[in-house]
Amino acid sequence: MNRIFTAAALVIGNEILSGRTQDSNVSYLGRRLNELGVRLVEVRIVPDLEEAIVPALRTLKAENDYVFTTGGIGPTHDDITVDCVGAAFNLPVVEHPEARRLLEDYYGDRINEARLRMARAPKGAELIDNPVSAAPGLRVENVFVLAGVPSIMRAQFESAASSIRGGKPLQSTSLDVALAESEIAPGFRELQSRYPDVEMGSYPFRRGEKLGTSLVLRSADGNRLVEAAGELRQLVDSLGGELMPRE
Amino acid sequence: MNRIFTAAALVIGNEILSGRTQDSNVSYLGRRLNELGVRLVEVRIVPDLEEAIVPALRTLKAENDYVFTTGGIGPTHDDITVDCVGAAFNLPVVEHPEARRLLEDYYGDRINEARLRMARAPKGAELIDNPVSAAPGLRVENVFVLAGVPSIMRAQFESAASSIRGGKPLQSTSLDVALAESEIAPGFRELQSRYPDVEMGSYPFRRGEKLGTSLVLRSADGNRLVEAAGELRQLVDSLGGELMPRE
Repeated sequence: MNRIFTAAALVIGNEILSGRTQDSNVSYLGRRLNELGVRLVEVRIVPDLEEAIVPALRTLKAENDYVFTTGGIGPTHDDITVDCVGAAFNLPVVEHPEARRLLEDYYGDRINEARLRMARAPKGAELIDNPVSAAPGLRVENVFVLAGVPSIMRAQFESAASSIRGGKPLQSTSLDVALAESEIAPGFRELQSRYPDVEMGSYPFRRGEKLGTSLVLRSADGNRLVEAAGELRQLVDSLGGELMPRE
Repeated sequence: MNRIFTAAALVIGNEILSGRTQDSNVSYLGRRLNELGVRLVEVRIVPDLEEAIVPALRTLKAENDYVFTTGGIGPTHDDITVDCVGAAFNLPVVEHPEARRLLEDYYGDRINEARLRMARAPKGAELIDNPVSAAPGLRVENVFVLAGVPSIMRAQFESAASSIRGGKPLQSTSLDVALAESEIAPGFRELQSRYPDVEMGSYPFRRGEKLGTSLVLRSADGNRLVEAAGELRQLVDSLGGELMPRE
């Protein structure tokens, strides 16, 4: 079975949109999902507003096998993701007894009302283990609700990874060459036309004084990838393009 | 006039979704747009596929004062942004004579067919100056079409900045305190309820061994911001929270 499994990410947080915080969760999700045979095909970044989060979530969960939300699951008033997931699924939000127990065990007598807010979940949600700081992630159907703090998001993602079913991962190979994109463009286009099953991209870069282009090939079919890479290498040689070492 | 000006960003590129490249354009746009009095209220990241780009562009340009696309305007086959912008506006894509002249001047006898692809534009598009590498950005109505390479994107954005009309910028102030989010949460929520015109967010952090919380206040009204910040400072003091120096 070769069906393609897709995922979307919904990044929730004013601090990403204002530029105050640089997101790094998207690139982590993109890489790890691909290793699990799932393609991240859309990301949306929205503010901490129910009217932005709920419609985005409804669309993304209908269009994809999986959705991963990041952010907005802490103890403060701007943490509204759990309520929005409930609204998107038309589920009431209730206290999850197991989540409460985890928080009470972790915080001991430092437990308080704000921390217990992190035990709230849409009815029927499964917990996602958080080995870093106890407050669990949540899964509701195909939606995984994760923290925004990268170390916690990653820990929660890895706890959930074994329940993510995917197809064949895309394999990739790349060549960094001392050629301008425009020099390789005609041959690269022709190569792409003969390998519709290999995704080909080119990305210009500057390393110190040197300009070059990264040529990236990706495919779920390892044999076709090797064939295409061999032809690409010949194309680069025919243009007199030298290979450049990776940074 | 106090109307709020909004913008969306459409980040185009498989390399961002695969995790191969870490986007940094969104945080730049978020910061600079706010300085111009425009709020970045949504970001979408989509692959290099017309069926993903065109509908996203149609939605975002209808819902916002401005849209900024990044990526997909180079010389290779995977650069399809210009065609997608044309499709989203139902405009034919033609060679822009001034763009051709700029490219011919810059490349001299190194001009070639691939480079001339970068002179293509939806009919009637305005050029956005690119002092870094000649290939211009484009403006079609409220959509600004910018490069993906950060140095070029920034240069093009700054060329276009004088034509972006906004409202009052959000001013912000923040306090880093040695308190857990959950300790400040009840008082912070109460403060937010009395200042609906001041956006309040809290972000936990770890610096070495020390845990703390950044409390961020943002408002278009400087007086209200100062008032709220004063009350927040009192709240932190009443909880015995020490201020922590910035990194």
